[in-house]
Amino acid sequence: MDRIIIDGAMVIPCDDEGLVLDNTVVGVEGDRITYLGEKAPNWEKAHRIDGSGCILIPGLINAHTHVAMTVMRGSADDLSLMDWLRHKVWPMEMAMSDEDRYWASKLAMLEMLRSGITCFLDMSLGTEGVAKACDETGLRARICEALLETQDPDYKRLDAALEQLASWKARAHPLIDFDLGPHALYTCTRSYMDRIMEAAWAFDARIQIHVAETTVELNECQEKYGMTPVEVLEEWGVLGQPTTAAHCIHLNDKDRRIFAKHGVSAVHNPSSNMKLAAGIMGAEDLLAAGVNVALGTDSSASNNNLSILGEMRRASLLQKVGDGDATSFGARKSLAAATRGGAVAAGKSGELGQIREGYLADLTLIRADGLHSWPPADPISHLSYSLRADDVDTVLVGGKVLLHRGEFSESDSAEVVARCREIASRIRI
Amino acid sequence: MDRIIIDGAMVIPCDDEGLVLDNTVVGVEGDRITYLGEKAPNWEKAHRIDGSGCILIPGLINAHTHVAMTVMRGSADDLSLMDWLRHKVWPMEMAMSDEDRYWASKLAMLEMLRSGITCFLDMSLGTEGVAKACDETGLRARICEALLETQDPDYKRLDAALEQLASWKARAHPLIDFDLGPHALYTCTRSYMDRIMEAAWAFDARIQIHVAETTVELNECQEKYGMTPVEVLEEWGVLGQPTTAAHCIHLNDKDRRIFAKHGVSAVHNPSSNMKLAAGIMGAEDLLAAGVNVALGTDSSASNNNLSILGEMRRASLLQKVGDGDATSFGARKSLAAATRGGAVAAGKSGELGQIREGYLADLTLIRADGLHSWPPADPISHLSYSLRADDVDTVLVGGKVLLHRGEFSESDSAEVVARCREIASRIRI
Repeated sequence: MDRIIIDGAMVIPCDDEGLVLDNTVVGVEGDRITYLGEKAPNWEKAHRIDGSGCILIPGLINAHTHVAMTVMRGSADDLSLMDWLRHKVWPMEMAMSDEDRYWASKLAMLEMLRSGITCFLDMSLGTEGVAKACDETGLRARICEALLETQDPDYKRLDAALEQLASWKARAHPLIDFDLGPHALYTCTRSYMDRIMEAAWAFDARIQIHVAETTVELNECQEKYGMTPVEVLEEWGVLGQPTTAAHCIHLNDKDRRIFAKHGVSAVHNPSSNMKLAAGIMGAEDLLAAGVNVALGTDSSASNNNLSILGEMRRASLLQKVGDGDATSFGARKSLAAATRGGAVAAGKSGELGQIREGYLADLTLIRADGLHSWPPADPISHLSYSLRADDVDTVLVGGKVLLHRGEFSESDSAEVVARCREIASRIRI
Repeated sequence: MDRIIIDGAMVIPCDDEGLVLDNTVVGVEGDRITYLGEKAPNWEKAHRIDGSGCILIPGLINAHTHVAMTVMRGSADDLSLMDWLRHKVWPMEMAMSDEDRYWASKLAMLEMLRSGITCFLDMSLGTEGVAKACDETGLRARICEALLETQDPDYKRLDAALEQLASWKARAHPLIDFDLGPHALYTCTRSYMDRIMEAAWAFDARIQIHVAETTVELNECQEKYGMTPVEVLEEWGVLGQPTTAAHCIHLNDKDRRIFAKHGVSAVHNPSSNMKLAAGIMGAEDLLAAGVNVALGTDSSASNNNLSILGEMRRASLLQKVGDGDATSFGARKSLAAATRGGAVAAGKSGELGQIREGYLADLTLIRADGLHSWPPADPISHLSYSLRADDVDTVLVGGKVLLHRGEFSESDSAEVVARCREIASRIRI
């Protein structure tokens, strides 16, 4: 069993006590954290990682993204949501092959790894390529096929997704789980959703879905069903399965109570919501209602980076200006959303998102001695407001070192970069 | 005369035509850009900078900051504006010596340089240390003493500032100019402002001032003077001198017309305005009214970085969500504000902020081949939405290479870092 000792770092466990531990050594055996203490454990043959000048946090969790869209970065900016979708994103998506999606996903995963992200929740078209790229890269993930009835008139994509779900459930991969991904209420009818939910009950699958991203969606839902999207999802039994809902911008008090009652996780995507002018999620209101809040980057086509450190900063800044209250959604809340909140959204709250003995060894070590994060101060403030993806030094997923001193230990980006340039120039509109 | 040739980069001149030049060589002689062309100029003994994989833009201009506050980074977050000022910023400012401000300013300047900023407009307490640090670091700057009547009952600080202005005007430093900095209307009475303006007329000095940052300021001004802050500034003759106004959030149509009439530059500080919940500047409305818009970081105590690339991104994202329009203040506008707009705010529109023959050789070369800005697409989109301060490769100010391959050519950060740690731990509250 591999053993790793990380010493010299300032450790932020993200536990209930909210401590910052100055002189703490973290020990990893196999895929678990097995030691926290002031002195190094008495282990023979342990690999030592020097964390001097760094902050050690639980691996960052990107709770909503679309990795296969990464090749669209910079090709569709400053457009209204409908122009963006109809004239750019959907046609480019349709022009991509399975292999294209594999390479695009790999680029996204390498960027995430370089940015300190250890686990992500993804909804893509053509998820076999996503899963293959993930397996090779070594990140932890929950993946689902984007199910849009509008693109699936004969339910073939749904049938394929169910087969895939069954096969990945049987495979019991240590890092990769599959979910079911009804894209949104406005792209699925009741009968399509019923088919999805039958499978969800049969497999006890988790649900990933977009909810209340725009006022258009909200108004159309009210007209069609006489209810809010959240009320419809409850009525249709979707929320009976563990659900992670992206965006959740246009909610009312009752919607938030429904989310809390069913333990739905709400994923905040501040950059994407700003860039597409979708609106401002009420993250403080959700927390006050007892709803778990996680953070997501959404895709590179509406962000245009995959950095949860960036989302932490923008989540705090956006909430303050949105609420007209500079104390809103401070650094502690954004860090909690990026770690513990993400772990809940990933269905792994008992073993992920904190630095604790027995927890999975997904860890991110971040340099905090750059000029832009100097002088040393409250390290949680620096994480949210000063540090950047480029400061990430070392990343472990399941006890395996995937990035060290900013370099990939297991991956080679050269072919990924070349392939993605070719794909982008081929599909660009 | 030193000659420098930069080749291989994608060049964005930020000129009237808004071009992106794929194969263009830029030549610098002395402190000026003297050549743009497809082939290298036939110069002997020129120093060559390889720009392959990079984007070359006019040096970024930070049109509003407070460099001496950099040691407060991370010490005063998630607080309301008044708590922030009264219980943190002002007491910490008062605890700093001239030498402390010198070191803090130097840290700020090294961070700015590392982030591709070549020129900044600063308002600090105790500006001799700021000017000394600037002279040593080699950045271009307009500096003014923060004049708050509330902190200057006997006008001693004002008198000292006027002496300093006279001495720096006489010195005619190639990179450093001094302005007059009445802090804001709510910290200066009419008689104090009159004293400042007499000097401004005598020296033909430029004005830096905070305007309409909060609704509290707006309401108090209406109560006290029966006018908006902008109307008062016009009435008092302040806007008769070239003025750069920071924040400008709570303006009406008439205010914008007054700004346009007097050629006032409005400096947008999106991060600071979000973090302190001040509000959302109407950057599109200002542009539509014919007002010059520049970008600023404000201080590290309310940002918490000094990166204009970061402000470009947040200016676009914030305007879109604020206006409910995803086409608002796109990448081209944020780049223009960060370069040409900044040059206007610095009173140097005829010779700064563009890559043009005869213009000052303030240039920023940014790597664009990182995973987080891949694949290559619209480079202006990448500048606003994907690239980060850490991507900055090389910076020239007045034809002098101050940063190359991410390393300082002329500065050593070791003592700055050590001093600033000591200062921060001494003044922290």
